[in-house]
Amino acid sequence: MAGQELDLIAIGNALVDTLIHADDTFLLEHGLGKGSMTLIDVTRAEQLYRASGPGIEASGGSAANTAAGLAMLGGRAGFAGRVANDQFGGVFRHDIRANGVEFETPSAKEGSPTGRCLVFVTPDANRTMQTYLGAAIEFGPDDLDESQIARAKYTFLEGYLWDQQRAKLAFLQAADIAHSAGRKVALTLSDPFCVERHREEFRQLVENHVDVLFANEAEICSLWQIPDFERAIQATRGKCPLAVVTRSEKGSVVLAGNKAFAVQAAPVERVVDTTGAGDQYAAGFLFGLSSGRRIESCARIACLTAAEVITHYGARLVTTLTDQVMARFS
Amino acid sequence: MAGQELDLIAIGNALVDTLIHADDTFLLEHGLGKGSMTLIDVTRAEQLYRASGPGIEASGGSAANTAAGLAMLGGRAGFAGRVANDQFGGVFRHDIRANGVEFETPSAKEGSPTGRCLVFVTPDANRTMQTYLGAAIEFGPDDLDESQIARAKYTFLEGYLWDQQRAKLAFLQAADIAHSAGRKVALTLSDPFCVERHREEFRQLVENHVDVLFANEAEICSLWQIPDFERAIQATRGKCPLAVVTRSEKGSVVLAGNKAFAVQAAPVERVVDTTGAGDQYAAGFLFGLSSGRRIESCARIACLTAAEVITHYGARLVTTLTDQVMARFS
Repeated sequence: MAGQELDLIAIGNALVDTLIHADDTFLLEHGLGKGSMTLIDVTRAEQLYRASGPGIEASGGSAANTAAGLAMLGGRAGFAGRVANDQFGGVFRHDIRANGVEFETPSAKEGSPTGRCLVFVTPDANRTMQTYLGAAIEFGPDDLDESQIARAKYTFLEGYLWDQQRAKLAFLQAADIAHSAGRKVALTLSDPFCVERHREEFRQLVENHVDVLFANEAEICSLWQIPDFERAIQATRGKCPLAVVTRSEKGSVVLAGNKAFAVQAAPVERVVDTTGAGDQYAAGFLFGLSSGRRIESCARIACLTAAEVITHYGARLVTTLTDQVMARFS
Repeated sequence: MAGQELDLIAIGNALVDTLIHADDTFLLEHGLGKGSMTLIDVTRAEQLYRASGPGIEASGGSAANTAAGLAMLGGRAGFAGRVANDQFGGVFRHDIRANGVEFETPSAKEGSPTGRCLVFVTPDANRTMQTYLGAAIEFGPDDLDESQIARAKYTFLEGYLWDQQRAKLAFLQAADIAHSAGRKVALTLSDPFCVERHREEFRQLVENHVDVLFANEAEICSLWQIPDFERAIQATRGKCPLAVVTRSEKGSVVLAGNKAFAVQAAPVERVVDTTGAGDQYAAGFLFGLSSGRRIESCARIACLTAAEVITHYGARLVTTLTDQVMARFS
């Protein structure tokens, strides 16, 4: 594998998700902001876990989900992020490699356990995430493999990295390495509250370092502090070469240079769990881009992959969609 | 909780399942006997895991699944079995308690990690299990809480316990405690190969120590070494007060004293994963028995709970079925 060109290197927090059914009353009682991601410490994580129903564990992490998705579609992906040398670290490493993703970041030898995300899925299929970063917090510039980044067409970074000083340095360094190698940099804004925490810096990033921007409606409105969606889209124009804004069942809007167009969401019979929808949208889009497809096709593939992941529990694709994707989009 | 009468105390191997999609070619290549459970050592477990696709983790263990299911239906259940003091042990303990099951067996302080079962689910929804017992192997008579057994209407034992000498002693002792307290003992034969390993002893058990026997078609045929189902049922008559034999989509047969009757399987739109079908059948049946329902109602409830668990991945119920069950069966 080493030395081969990659379609994507994704860099982000390496996490194992625990998916738990919960109702709105549970969210209220525990002060959880529905639909958002909150960073919590180990004490709070234990307290919440104790109070919550039975769960299932599945590898997660936003950028990691995107890497796994792109590999499921037949692309070549790598991932960089930090787990501990523990059982959940073993699960994370196994799953992402089993998806065919290059993952060589060494496990943390000591310190915190592998990061975990409690994902509370409500009956309306919405998800509320409470993340204990654990070993992911230790990820820093030393964990970057320059040659891996240089041989990837796209370096994909999650906004969540900005929450930790060392991860942020790694983020900026990775973007530099990618651009120096003549490669492109993609960013997902991750979460509206993450945007709120880092708004000014994210604006600078988008305007100066990002080739492909992924955001959802709430995130793009927060970025420009414009509550009206159409006006937020106008504000995004010209800020970076390619921007893609997702709107759940309302589809997505693509801004590519002077071009702007909307794409309908793919039909879904029953939405079970929206965890990973944004991550898999990015996976489909970047798979399309890195395989040289037209922008319109990239958006269509992205809608299909997002539609697949919301029909079941968990944030990663369980079917390849390869036949559908290959046959229909040029 | 302590002191309250229980409907059920289940005793078995405490395991965390890893559910993995696999095809028949994978089973063949790795020499896995489709549909069966095989005990493997840690080296083999690591080798198989390395070779297999991405998975999801969920608490399992046959008798533990039954305890969790009975609690989901609204019954009062306890479980005894051994995990290690590690991350998977934490998951197992959390999940079963979150289901409302009393679980107080202390974690093993040292030695093997928590036991794990690799569950390979083929596209036909069949499951093939490879079990590394880990800390479960250390379960023995000292782990029994006599008073917990004495206050449970039914002590439910899995045949798998018979594979380990100390667990077997615990099994026999638990049955003695239950009977001395005027309680009933239920047994599941677990797996046809498990029956083959312990046939003579299982026959003795059924005839002398068991009040309620659960078996599937392959297991009951193996127990009496009679390949014909109808004749195997005849051979079972009179051996123990109540015997229930499940036949997948063909429903089940109940032998209660002189009475014998067949019950149709509940209709299922799409079978996704048969893992836990037998365990949840037992949960439904024992819930019915311990709540004083007619035998026919117990069998109907059992068919419903078995039908629920095969419509999704994982061996435990995700819906309570309470309304359905309560309203329809007296």
